[in-house]
Amino acid sequence: MSEPARPENTRGSLFDPVFGAGEIAPMLSDHAWLTALLDVEVAITRTAERYGRATSDDVAAVAAAAARIARELDPAELGGLAAAGGNPVIPLVKILRDRADAPATAVHVGATSQDVLDSALMLLSRKAGGYVLGQLRAAADAAARLARTHRDTPMVARTLGQQALPTTFGALAAGWLAALDDGAAEVERAVNTLPVQYGGAAGTLAAVHPDGPAFADTLADLLGLARPLVPWHTARTPITRLASALGIATGSVSKAATDIVLMAATELGEVAEDAPGGSSAMPHKRNPVAAITARAAARRVPGLVATALAAADHEFARAAGAWHAEWETLTDLIRLSGGAAHQLSVCLGGLHVNPDALSRNLGLTGGAILAEKVTAALAEHTGGARDIVTAAAAAGTPLDRVPAITEHLGADRVRELLDPTCYLGHAGDLVDRALAHHDLTKGSA
Amino acid sequence: MSEPARPENTRGSLFDPVFGAGEIAPMLSDHAWLTALLDVEVAITRTAERYGRATSDDVAAVAAAAARIARELDPAELGGLAAAGGNPVIPLVKILRDRADAPATAVHVGATSQDVLDSALMLLSRKAGGYVLGQLRAAADAAARLARTHRDTPMVARTLGQQALPTTFGALAAGWLAALDDGAAEVERAVNTLPVQYGGAAGTLAAVHPDGPAFADTLADLLGLARPLVPWHTARTPITRLASALGIATGSVSKAATDIVLMAATELGEVAEDAPGGSSAMPHKRNPVAAITARAAARRVPGLVATALAAADHEFARAAGAWHAEWETLTDLIRLSGGAAHQLSVCLGGLHVNPDALSRNLGLTGGAILAEKVTAALAEHTGGARDIVTAAAAAGTPLDRVPAITEHLGADRVRELLDPTCYLGHAGDLVDRALAHHDLTKGSA
Amino acid sequence: MSEPARPENTRGSLFDPVFGAGEIAPMLSDHAWLTALLDVEVAITRTAERYGRATSDDVAAVAAAAARIARELDPAELGGLAAAGGNPVIPLVKILRDRADAPATAVHVGATSQDVLDSALMLLSRKAGGYVLGQLRAAADAAARLARTHRDTPMVARTLGQQALPTTFGALAAGWLAALDDGAAEVERAVNTLPVQYGGAAGTLAAVHPDGPAFADTLADLLGLARPLVPWHTARTPITRLASALGIATGSVSKAATDIVLMAATELGEVAEDAPGGSSAMPHKRNPVAAITARAAARRVPGLVATALAAADHEFARAAGAWHAEWETLTDLIRLSGGAAHQLSVCLGGLHVNPDALSRNLGLTGGAILAEKVTAALAEHTGGARDIVTAAAAAGTPLDRVPAITEHLGADRVRELLDPTCYLGHAGDLVDRALAHHDLTKGSA
Amino acid sequence: MSEPARPENTRGSLFDPVFGAGEIAPMLSDHAWLTALLDVEVAITRTAERYGRATSDDVAAVAAAAARIARELDPAELGGLAAAGGNPVIPLVKILRDRADAPATAVHVGATSQDVLDSALMLLSRKAGGYVLGQLRAAADAAARLARTHRDTPMVARTLGQQALPTTFGALAAGWLAALDDGAAEVERAVNTLPVQYGGAAGTLAAVHPDGPAFADTLADLLGLARPLVPWHTARTPITRLASALGIATGSVSKAATDIVLMAATELGEVAEDAPGGSSAMPHKRNPVAAITARAAARRVPGLVATALAAADHEFARAAGAWHAEWETLTDLIRLSGGAAHQLSVCLGGLHVNPDALSRNLGLTGGAILAEKVTAALAEHTGGARDIVTAAAAAGTPLDRVPAITEHLGADRVRELLDPTCYLGHAGDLVDRALAHHDLTKGSA
Repeated sequence: MSEPARPENTRGSLFDPVFGAGEIAPMLSDHAWLTALLDVEVAITRTAERYGRATSDDVAAVAAAAARIARELDPAELGGLAAAGGNPVIPLVKILRDRADAPATAVHVGATSQDVLDSALMLLSRKAGGYVLGQLRAAADAAARLARTHRDTPMVARTLGQQALPTTFGALAAGWLAALDDGAAEVERAVNTLPVQYGGAAGTLAAVHPDGPAFADTLADLLGLARPLVPWHTARTPITRLASALGIATGSVSKAATDIVLMAATELGEVAEDAPGGSSAMPHKRNPVAAITARAAARRVPGLVATALAAADHEFARAAGAWHAEWETLTDLIRLSGGAAHQLSVCLGGLHVNPDALSRNLGLTGGAILAEKVTAALAEHTGGARDIVTAAAAAGTPLDRVPAITEHLGADRVRELLDPTCYLGHAGDLVDRALAHHDLTKGSA
Repeated sequence: MSEPARPENTRGSLFDPVFGAGEIAPMLSDHAWLTALLDVEVAITRTAERYGRATSDDVAAVAAAAARIARELDPAELGGLAAAGGNPVIPLVKILRDRADAPATAVHVGATSQDVLDSALMLLSRKAGGYVLGQLRAAADAAARLARTHRDTPMVARTLGQQALPTTFGALAAGWLAALDDGAAEVERAVNTLPVQYGGAAGTLAAVHPDGPAFADTLADLLGLARPLVPWHTARTPITRLASALGIATGSVSKAATDIVLMAATELGEVAEDAPGGSSAMPHKRNPVAAITARAAARRVPGLVATALAAADHEFARAAGAWHAEWETLTDLIRLSGGAAHQLSVCLGGLHVNPDALSRNLGLTGGAILAEKVTAALAEHTGGARDIVTAAAAAGTPLDRVPAITEHLGADRVRELLDPTCYLGHAGDLVDRALAHHDLTKGSA
Repeated sequence: MSEPARPENTRGSLFDPVFGAGEIAPMLSDHAWLTALLDVEVAITRTAERYGRATSDDVAAVAAAAARIARELDPAELGGLAAAGGNPVIPLVKILRDRADAPATAVHVGATSQDVLDSALMLLSRKAGGYVLGQLRAAADAAARLARTHRDTPMVARTLGQQALPTTFGALAAGWLAALDDGAAEVERAVNTLPVQYGGAAGTLAAVHPDGPAFADTLADLLGLARPLVPWHTARTPITRLASALGIATGSVSKAATDIVLMAATELGEVAEDAPGGSSAMPHKRNPVAAITARAAARRVPGLVATALAAADHEFARAAGAWHAEWETLTDLIRLSGGAAHQLSVCLGGLHVNPDALSRNLGLTGGAILAEKVTAALAEHTGGARDIVTAAAAAGTPLDRVPAITEHLGADRVRELLDPTCYLGHAGDLVDRALAHHDLTKGSA
Repeated sequence: MSEPARPENTRGSLFDPVFGAGEIAPMLSDHAWLTALLDVEVAITRTAERYGRATSDDVAAVAAAAARIARELDPAELGGLAAAGGNPVIPLVKILRDRADAPATAVHVGATSQDVLDSALMLLSRKAGGYVLGQLRAAADAAARLARTHRDTPMVARTLGQQALPTTFGALAAGWLAALDDGAAEVERAVNTLPVQYGGAAGTLAAVHPDGPAFADTLADLLGLARPLVPWHTARTPITRLASALGIATGSVSKAATDIVLMAATELGEVAEDAPGGSSAMPHKRNPVAAITARAAARRVPGLVATALAAADHEFARAAGAWHAEWETLTDLIRLSGGAAHQLSVCLGGLHVNPDALSRNLGLTGGAILAEKVTAALAEHTGGARDIVTAAAAAGTPLDRVPAITEHLGADRVRELLDPTCYLGHAGDLVDRALAHHDLTKGSA
């Protein structure tokens, strides 16, 4: 009977919740692997029945044995057995054959270890990838709500860390939304095309000739995976595509999370998370923990994408290392991406926006961010416009109190020119465009 | 007048040809950048004319000045001027305004430095990315020819470095083809959706209100770039998507190149490049230089993709570092990807396949790779089948000379079972599938 | 009371044994973290006692409570509590204060979460890093034995995949040895300088003023860590140095493992692992599983090093993401490096070298690899030496049977010139040098 | 005769100045490569003379020819010739032999292409690496000056983006200093141990037997490089060590640059660069361009380090791709590291620190950051201390005006407790320690 994993050997349960991976981690656990490997084996026997290579009794026996093994076999025990051959499928097939009341030939029909492991990885990726997608969409929905609510809330746009010109919080959030929608689209595309792997030891489907391609397609259908053009045992684009999509999407997550962390700074105080991390010793602290940990998870993604891409050079018909390097790299990638997206969805979903702080910061330079507009208007009256305005700005004098300006424009006109709400451009239109696209995307999803 | 770049400061000309980048490097050179930046500025003025913000005389004057600057300005001089502000657009706009017989307001209309730099990067990416695509397709075409020609040429499939079972050279090449076609599709998709950047200093299009979105669309059309949903100054999915696509495609390149390097080994001798690198001292050497350098270029790509993905966290309305980090990262990525694809297309385009060597290596184990088939057949006659065959294999005795086997099966039957050409499975079918898909892809391209 | 981790949530036990991490993984598990965090807290209270900030009763109470918590607290429970504040120290301190029969002021004295988490990470790194070092040394010792045993066993040197000139197996192994010794030295240096972290919330040691620096030094001594120059809460060189050292060492591992995989190929057959992975279906297969999985683990290391390096930009006095990104990145790095080194030590420790195969492959070109020596000797007799030899080599004619050669040199002289054992250069000397350096290194260790 | 490089093919001159690489780029240019390759060849002939394998006339002739070639040969031409064999040494040796008035045997004595290319790369690395070291030290010196000057200038320490407790600008700068000194020490160590490469085609030094090891040592001495233990043609620790050291040092650079960018934000205004990037349109903008571009260069380093580490798996006696992948990866790494360090030294060297702004920001929370001290003091008088203080802090009431507090402590005592300058802990001591260590490091340099 299965014993629980010895706690001194396990990892993940301490830090996964911190990085938002509490929900996704079980979809990629050792037990999830075991179940997926068995699901593939059962589907192979089921497919074999369709092509007269196994009986319905065999299917029942193999399915029953697989269910027992999934319940009872400790993944750590399988791991120990896996070391000798370098993958867990070799011992798992032996166990399944031993325990199933069916001939050995009805198990693992025409398959090689890589077929089962790759297909199981695709099953995990489809399920957990679907979760990532859901979290990305939740984050995008939250960004959309923020963009809609604050469509016309003025704030200052900062470039290179410096206050530049007015914009709106809605426009900022619309940028998050567009990037998140893009990222989600990449993940959706990659997840929806994950193919089954089935080619046999040499990738020729020789063991099930003449049923090979049909066998592979049936297997794909049974597992709910895409039908492959040809076996992809050494053509790893399904894996590099998924890894890249997660990298793209997580890049979008990190953009929004970074803005939140900066805007939540004590000095800016423009946003706060709904449940910021506090400190008993420092009651004034409101750490934007969800955004912080989203960033942290996101920072770990690009290196893993590089590993996945660099592992594409599978030599010959099964790579001696590059293949094995993909397994945990991909599950780590999915888990971290899902965690980052989850944390961002939590962060944005409960975000408190402080319009007063936005307004206060927007006014910080006393209109200097719009001085150029005064210069332009003044230039119609005097050739020294730029010098006059620059001198006043440097001296910190409010422009509506500079006689050399007001004699031409009038103080009211100057104040109007300096009014940030009069220079928001298409901020609102851009919000509307991003929202319309988001709604369209959701409709098609 | 423009002086040539001081040779002591330049790089690329020594190693680019080695890495297959002789053709693509000029598309991404300093001069190409200068030209692209100016192309964007001219298109901005041209767009401004459409919206009544510049005259046709302005357009002519700006275009003429830009053409002169492109001819005469040393990029190194612009580079020197660029250091103060952190990008070359600031001084270039000044130069253009100085030299164009047009009002300052007709130049850089409503634009910010990032608009021009990003759009220029998209122009370079579209052109050079198109070249990468062409080289990927040339490599895929060469793989297709090899797959077709050697559809039925037997060879041994190797898994984990060990001979496993028979396959065909065609099936191996079909695997290359499928991966290359996948990679090319990713690059095509990314290159075809590269958008123009145009948002103004705060990304609100305020300076050209109420023409903003229309202005951006017109600019895109004039430059032959995609119309953006919203300004993407801090939503960098166009860049992360392109970087990822290049990473995926180059992964496919490295797979084929790695196989070539291994098959060209003296001991295997299964393939040779048309123009291998020789050695005056060692006339027997036939280094597969194109495959080697394709691998070398490909190895440098994943790290750059990681850099591009990690740079997606652009804070606020213009990132203080992440933006600048993208520029050369992306052009290096494109150049190396293009070089790798070029080298592979050269390698595969002239590849000499040696069927005799393939056959010799296939026979190396004296049939041991098919011993399992003998075991299976023998098992119908005796319970000790596996032991008998394993013992003979371990002793190195040809199975058709083992009495314990031939008494049941006959030597002819044993030899038939050991004939690799009788166990190629669907190798030919897989070639046909990959070729059909390739032809379809080309038709739609 | 502690419950075992729910098996559906755990990971690592399935794949760690495959990647050689069966022994090291428990040193980096959730439970190891919990224990290390508590060890740091107890040492802090113990240090506080030295400076009159806690009593000996407090120390006993805190130590007793910590021991109970280490036994009873499920890391998963702590993980769940950790999510709110973004790190597990916050809830752990609360639990420790609740359960220790000591005043709150005697727990976590003058410390901040980062002090405890960083110091715990250093404790894990020192212990598990020591294990990595041990495995690297075991691998180096095995390489040394191979170099010594096969000091004079001829084999062919291959450059760019092509046979080049003779060398010895000993010289090849000496190259492995030198690289492994270098890598081990880097790891030893990094592990031996891991410092304690102790600075308080702002890094000023204000809460324990005027005992701050002395307090930190005492704490370091009690934990067996290095004394820090200053708190390094945002000066992360201890972490980047360790990550880099692991990257360097694992690069050395991958070099040797790659050679083994290639030499174990069916066609070369020059080496075999002691316990290669077999296949019931393919009795001829002898997969070098330890080398394969060493390579696989090694391939995952560079991306993680990049993540660790990129996380060095800790802003202000505690980074909002970069800090959190280090934790699992570093433990993954240590675990994978240790696994790779372990697998290589297993591989090399039991390696079977086949001198006959080495000899057979060395003779494969019939002397062509030494044709240049014949050319040189012949050139003293005739101006057409190179043409004569090249023609014969191209035709595949043994050079000792070419009249145009033997008329000048004599067949015996030609055979002598082509004898690879007469052109081994300093292969033996290089083995001796590498061995002497290795012995020296061990002596000093 | 040499023609200048065609400008349309060159790169670097446009962006190098932006990234601070204007000075270092020429040390790593194509021309620098050509010169270094020739320097190695001349040194080889010079060494050969010592061992009676060349005459002094040969040395003179080879040196003269090399000098002419260095002046006259366009690297682009050599690059074109290099493509056929995959490296520039093959054609360069041919050119040198053609042009030198010396027998062919006096050129490239006993060497293989990799010997020359690797040794040339070490020459470039030593020189340009020395420049990187100089820039790191300049940045560290500037940090030291800032730490000394502002040893006692109070500012607020920020953790996770939130104001936490008081510290000093000096303590912050001391953290930069410690990290930069650490990074410089790593680079110095790596640069000082760069070894010559000399092993011949098989790495056995056969062609110069029995002078091999002595020949290599002499060559090292002549070139000013370290003597190698054994040829390291496939033991790449000198390269991975240098790459890692640059990664570590650049991580330290990015820490300081990131702080500067954040502190220069309009809302904080705590620092400004001496020559910030301005904007004619926005006179209030003071972009910290040097810090921004330092960060940008630094962001590109980790991915390159990963590439260098991943390239360590050189198979057999010369790697078919991994070797070639190192060349530009290493020079890019050095150039970017040097640029980042240069920009930081410029940034810190001219940094304007604004104590008023530091003071203003420190007072922003009205003492809330020290509320805990009031709680602690109040707790000696009443059990409800924490509730009282927390309520006042939440209400924003100054603590010295809360009767429930002042009735116990007195308003003066409360203000004293809230005075940040009374809670700086060991900030000054830490500055002193970092400065003392820095001075010690310089003394030993």
